[in-house]
Amino acid sequence: MVTLSKSRIEALSDGVFSIAMTLLVLKLEVPEVMHHSSNQAMLEQLLALAPQFTTFVATFLIAGGFWFLHHLTFHFIRNVDGFLVWVNLFFLMFISLLPFSAGLMSHFSVHPVSQLFYFGNQLAIALLLNVHWQYARWRSLTVDAEPHEVTRLSFRVGLTAAVFAACIVVAIFYPAYSWTPLPALVVIGMIIERWKIHRR
Amino acid sequence: MVTLSKSRIEALSDGVFSIAMTLLVLKLEVPEVMHHSSNQAMLEQLLALAPQFTTFVATFLIAGGFWFLHHLTFHFIRNVDGFLVWVNLFFLMFISLLPFSAGLMSHFSVHPVSQLFYFGNQLAIALLLNVHWQYARWRSLTVDAEPHEVTRLSFRVGLTAAVFAACIVVAIFYPAYSWTPLPALVVIGMIIERWKIHRR
Amino acid sequence: MVTLSKSRIEALSDGVFSIAMTLLVLKLEVPEVMHHSSNQAMLEQLLALAPQFTTFVATFLIAGGFWFLHHLTFHFIRNVDGFLVWVNLFFLMFISLLPFSAGLMSHFSVHPVSQLFYFGNQLAIALLLNVHWQYARWRSLTVDAEPHEVTRLSFRVGLTAAVFAACIVVAIFYPAYSWTPLPALVVIGMIIERWKIHRR
Amino acid sequence: MVTLSKSRIEALSDGVFSIAMTLLVLKLEVPEVMHHSSNQAMLEQLLALAPQFTTFVATFLIAGGFWFLHHLTFHFIRNVDGFLVWVNLFFLMFISLLPFSAGLMSHFSVHPVSQLFYFGNQLAIALLLNVHWQYARWRSLTVDAEPHEVTRLSFRVGLTAAVFAACIVVAIFYPAYSWTPLPALVVIGMIIERWKIHRR
Repeated sequence: MVTLSKSRIEALSDGVFSIAMTLLVLKLEVPEVMHHSSNQAMLEQLLALAPQFTTFVATFLIAGGFWFLHHLTFHFIRNVDGFLVWVNLFFLMFISLLPFSAGLMSHFSVHPVSQLFYFGNQLAIALLLNVHWQYARWRSLTVDAEPHEVTRLSFRVGLTAAVFAACIVVAIFYPAYSWTPLPALVVIGMIIERWKIHRR
Repeated sequence: MVTLSKSRIEALSDGVFSIAMTLLVLKLEVPEVMHHSSNQAMLEQLLALAPQFTTFVATFLIAGGFWFLHHLTFHFIRNVDGFLVWVNLFFLMFISLLPFSAGLMSHFSVHPVSQLFYFGNQLAIALLLNVHWQYARWRSLTVDAEPHEVTRLSFRVGLTAAVFAACIVVAIFYPAYSWTPLPALVVIGMIIERWKIHRR
Repeated sequence: MVTLSKSRIEALSDGVFSIAMTLLVLKLEVPEVMHHSSNQAMLEQLLALAPQFTTFVATFLIAGGFWFLHHLTFHFIRNVDGFLVWVNLFFLMFISLLPFSAGLMSHFSVHPVSQLFYFGNQLAIALLLNVHWQYARWRSLTVDAEPHEVTRLSFRVGLTAAVFAACIVVAIFYPAYSWTPLPALVVIGMIIERWKIHRR
Repeated sequence: MVTLSKSRIEALSDGVFSIAMTLLVLKLEVPEVMHHSSNQAMLEQLLALAPQFTTFVATFLIAGGFWFLHHLTFHFIRNVDGFLVWVNLFFLMFISLLPFSAGLMSHFSVHPVSQLFYFGNQLAIALLLNVHWQYARWRSLTVDAEPHEVTRLSFRVGLTAAVFAACIVVAIFYPAYSWTPLPALVVIGMIIERWKIHRR
């Protein structure tokens, strides 16, 4: 099979990420208050958009985090084969689905169904990122350098799947606390990383 | 005529592909159920979106396949002339039409007119990809290396036109089965490729 | 002043062009016929979109032509200074306005106001492209090679301004024929180019 | 920590900037006049869009200015670390929020709340650009060359924060003049720059 230069898949990825992340803003609708309405009414309308803003910020930053990890993997990947391209296309398909999931979440954040859809979307992204990275390592498409960094990256990529799997479990039993595993596991992950570095 | 570096046409292509593929998600409308509606109602609304989801997934992956083939052709193309740029602009015009065709298909998949429009769009993309690739080979704009890979790519590029021509024919006589030629011919194509490799 | 590498302004341009060209499709609205409406009704709805389709195709190809010329200028431009960056930002602003102008044109093509707005937008793009190119030549930001090609490109860039100025003049007096100067002048331009080459 | 090549963050930035800048046009809605309405009515409808046009032009050019400064900083930045990537993701988040802020501004420019939101968005961008640039200098991620240009760039980056802080202050007391600090401070900045150069 012909090997695609990785720069092309990187360009498509940068495109899909930047568009999906920017389209999130279209879910923030300018409030339809009247021109002659009071300043107070205007402020109340904006504050009523708080759930949409929270979802916008959270989804933008989560997508940014996935972009960062995706790029770190390409720091180590030399070649790309047909299977890896298709894994990336599925990965990008779930990235491009984020504006829909974010729209669902911001309008119906109290519904377990919305939460499961949203975190399910994030989990699919996380799992495909793991398939992408583990396949590249398994088929030796990666550079054999900086083994500590490779281990660290594998840990982080794996952690994203754990985070969103935990969010789904919490969403089923305690919907009001479904977001809590995200900051909790990121902090725990950072502590484990530091502790391992100090032990070396 | 001045020769454009191929990197620019690649950048425009990556841009149009990534935007058209991401805009597909805008055809998925967040269901307008009430905040106080039951979880069950919410789930039903989401399941009612099944045709839209199917079209989104199928169109994203077909577009991804065209992007992959388009990029493989540029692996062999060294130079670009004015005619090739214009063929590519027409090619990209039909790519950018995909969100419209997908919207038509997802809303009216039972209508033969929608199906002919959708598969006609895909066939136009496939035919322009063939013109692009055969013209580049005819004018010797390609690298003279890896002849087996070039033959294989020509076979695959040609196959896309056969797939969507077959979909159109089936759509006319048996609209309910219009999608079937796509997986069938892809599998047959893969078998032919393997069989040829084994014979060599 | 620090000189920006031209690759960055090229990347922003490719981005704005590909997005503006792809957003044109959002002006094509999926017809709102009923699911149970006849095939004939569906076809009529699609045919009623003919003005939108014509505008979509014409605007996409005109924008593609501007993209091509813009890129050809960068084939000769070595360096970029602050003034050239700002000329390019104004140029890209009018490119990004195209989906609005195209929307106006496709809905109200019979109105002289729509036509003047649309062709005025195209003329602004053409004039800024001329400013961009002539400034780059005047400040010697271009490579001193292929003088014939540089002359040819200057001719083509200048021709775009003549085309849309002519369209505006025709739109004022004979709105129904406002598009005619476009193909006419392009053909005349090609004849002049060939005639000059034969004379050399 | 693995250092990301700066080309990737530049590509994501170019993507987000070009999309956010092009999405601004979606806030310009094609007037809903009738096909048989008079030319005069059409013109009045377009003129009624003047606040939207002003906001579109101003926001496009301000975003273009931020893009220019952001790129100039990358002219001097060699390496990127994890912290800088996250600063850039927050920076891009506020860039992608611009279509919303511009929509708010163009519909409700008389409301102090809209003005504070809009200029607050611009100030957040300006402050994050300062954090990005000062952090890169502090951690010696920049090239040690052209010290005059580095000083000049620091001055300009700092000026953007001063401009939008001034706009906010004026918006609180004299909403009708909230835009005035922008041209005033840019001109003053240019005078200071020239004066410093003449003194050297």
